[in-house]
Amino acid sequence: MQQDTCQAWVLPKAGDTKVFQLKNQQLARPRSGEIRVEVHFSGINFADILMRQGLYPDAPAYPFVPGYEVSGIVESVGEGVETFKVGDLVYAGTAFGGYSSKIILPTWQVMHISKDIELDEAAGIPVSAITAYNVLFEQGNIKGQEKVLVDCASGALGQMVHSMLSGLNVELWGLTSSDEKKKWLVERGVKALTHEEFSSSNEAGFDLILNSLGGRSVKLHYSRLAPLGRIVCIGAADAISPGRRNLFKALKTVLSFPRFKVIKLMNDNKGVFGLNVLRLMASPEIIRAQLEKIQDKTLISNIDRIFSYRSLELAHAYLEGRHSRGKVLLDWRE
Amino acid sequence: MQQDTCQAWVLPKAGDTKVFQLKNQQLARPRSGEIRVEVHFSGINFADILMRQGLYPDAPAYPFVPGYEVSGIVESVGEGVETFKVGDLVYAGTAFGGYSSKIILPTWQVMHISKDIELDEAAGIPVSAITAYNVLFEQGNIKGQEKVLVDCASGALGQMVHSMLSGLNVELWGLTSSDEKKKWLVERGVKALTHEEFSSSNEAGFDLILNSLGGRSVKLHYSRLAPLGRIVCIGAADAISPGRRNLFKALKTVLSFPRFKVIKLMNDNKGVFGLNVLRLMASPEIIRAQLEKIQDKTLISNIDRIFSYRSLELAHAYLEGRHSRGKVLLDWRE
Repeated sequence: MQQDTCQAWVLPKAGDTKVFQLKNQQLARPRSGEIRVEVHFSGINFADILMRQGLYPDAPAYPFVPGYEVSGIVESVGEGVETFKVGDLVYAGTAFGGYSSKIILPTWQVMHISKDIELDEAAGIPVSAITAYNVLFEQGNIKGQEKVLVDCASGALGQMVHSMLSGLNVELWGLTSSDEKKKWLVERGVKALTHEEFSSSNEAGFDLILNSLGGRSVKLHYSRLAPLGRIVCIGAADAISPGRRNLFKALKTVLSFPRFKVIKLMNDNKGVFGLNVLRLMASPEIIRAQLEKIQDKTLISNIDRIFSYRSLELAHAYLEGRHSRGKVLLDWRE
Repeated sequence: MQQDTCQAWVLPKAGDTKVFQLKNQQLARPRSGEIRVEVHFSGINFADILMRQGLYPDAPAYPFVPGYEVSGIVESVGEGVETFKVGDLVYAGTAFGGYSSKIILPTWQVMHISKDIELDEAAGIPVSAITAYNVLFEQGNIKGQEKVLVDCASGALGQMVHSMLSGLNVELWGLTSSDEKKKWLVERGVKALTHEEFSSSNEAGFDLILNSLGGRSVKLHYSRLAPLGRIVCIGAADAISPGRRNLFKALKTVLSFPRFKVIKLMNDNKGVFGLNVLRLMASPEIIRAQLEKIQDKTLISNIDRIFSYRSLELAHAYLEGRHSRGKVLLDWRE
């Protein structure tokens, strides 16, 4: 029998990995246009680390339940909902609330899972896939024979980019934080460098660069673009210090983001984009169309590790420490 | 018999429309990889007005012969040139030197004219077509069902954009400087407004904006973009005052170009591009590939007026006064 309660990880204030509180919460019944999902897996994203450290300006007021993406089984449907029925396997982008054993969602955020992939793989799709899709195809306008650089190559997003570029005859370069992850990337066919190697190299002529580090790395990466090249900026990962909150470093990163003069852009024949998928969710028609274009079945699995929902603290420490090579998930099944 | 002399309009210094001097010049024979063209028509562009007024930073040192594009007949070919023969009808982007009755060009800048168009139409292709192509397809990544705004809709570039968008199911909006030109645009199926009407309207939600005015118009236009929208900045036409050189207005335009913060671009999900086709000509492989993609036969004629080569002064005054509704050409045939 259905119960109108769930468990959820609440973030009561900014803090270290121990700050979360697991709470029982009351849940409403889904209304018209909504469904209720029994969550099996929740994705953990780098933005969640920023959020937990109090460094994410678009976070809701405390206390709140973080979490951008889930997969699971439809547990009940609101009045008039015809596209989903109880028992359907689904995944969804959630725009907060994903660290929860049940969640109510408007149907436009939810997609069916095809038979080709597993529930855990599906939980890793929404954030990485929508981000990669916008970077590569909406904003970046990638074409064959181009040279692409991704500055977070070994993470879930980097792997999603790799997957989406397969078959496009694109030369993929990736930056990462250690020799070990570099080797791992090279084995997968990516031309990899550490961030330090890239800074001191002369590698240039990139048609598209995905910048997630932010801060002064943006100016460096911009300088390595080819004519007609474009850089898509998606974050400020450089603001994070593994293991502790370092407000000085965070502030330094934010303040060292460059400003671009239009006349310089003209002289250089270059372009600069900003992408914030969370804010893009204010345009349901855009997100829905993209979810349908992306689909799950064209995507490789990019799961690195799955933690029990009880071990959120460990999962956050793992991602914050930049140990991950792909998506990190919470498993809500008992 | 071939003569190694030609006539050319020399710009000896910055000045008003009377400053040009028509001079006889010695011409070399074309070398390997070059051809010599007997020019029939030269295109006059808005950048030439800026250049004559001394407001174009990339202009060569005085004295020089301006002119970005020509059409004509191949008069002689350099050693080893096989793709062109004497008598071929051609058009070319010239990167200066186009205001001349003969010109030597590297073959990569030159295209054959198909049977479908006339020599005068061909002279109006290179600058408008390469600019429009880059704005729409390289940088702007235009797709069907999108909403496009062009701030120089009644000029040669605006018409080229209109032509290239035909069949793409794009909603084209155009800005222009007078009610008369607005009416003319509306008759051609463009949703037209004067610049003043646009400023005071709430029209927004544009996916792509072509900005040629520059200065503070960039910020205004940026504010009217939809999520995932992009603005391509190609010039500073606002720096020009018809009839006289106004350095104060020019300086004001240049200084009022905005600078874009990366964090703002992220929050807005928007992008800013700069385009300078002249500088892009430093990448012959890019320009050549684009000329071949564009071809002449898909383009409508966008010729407004043709002046005798003796009347360059009148032609410049016509364009400077913003009277044109399309390309303005010089005719070098006696």
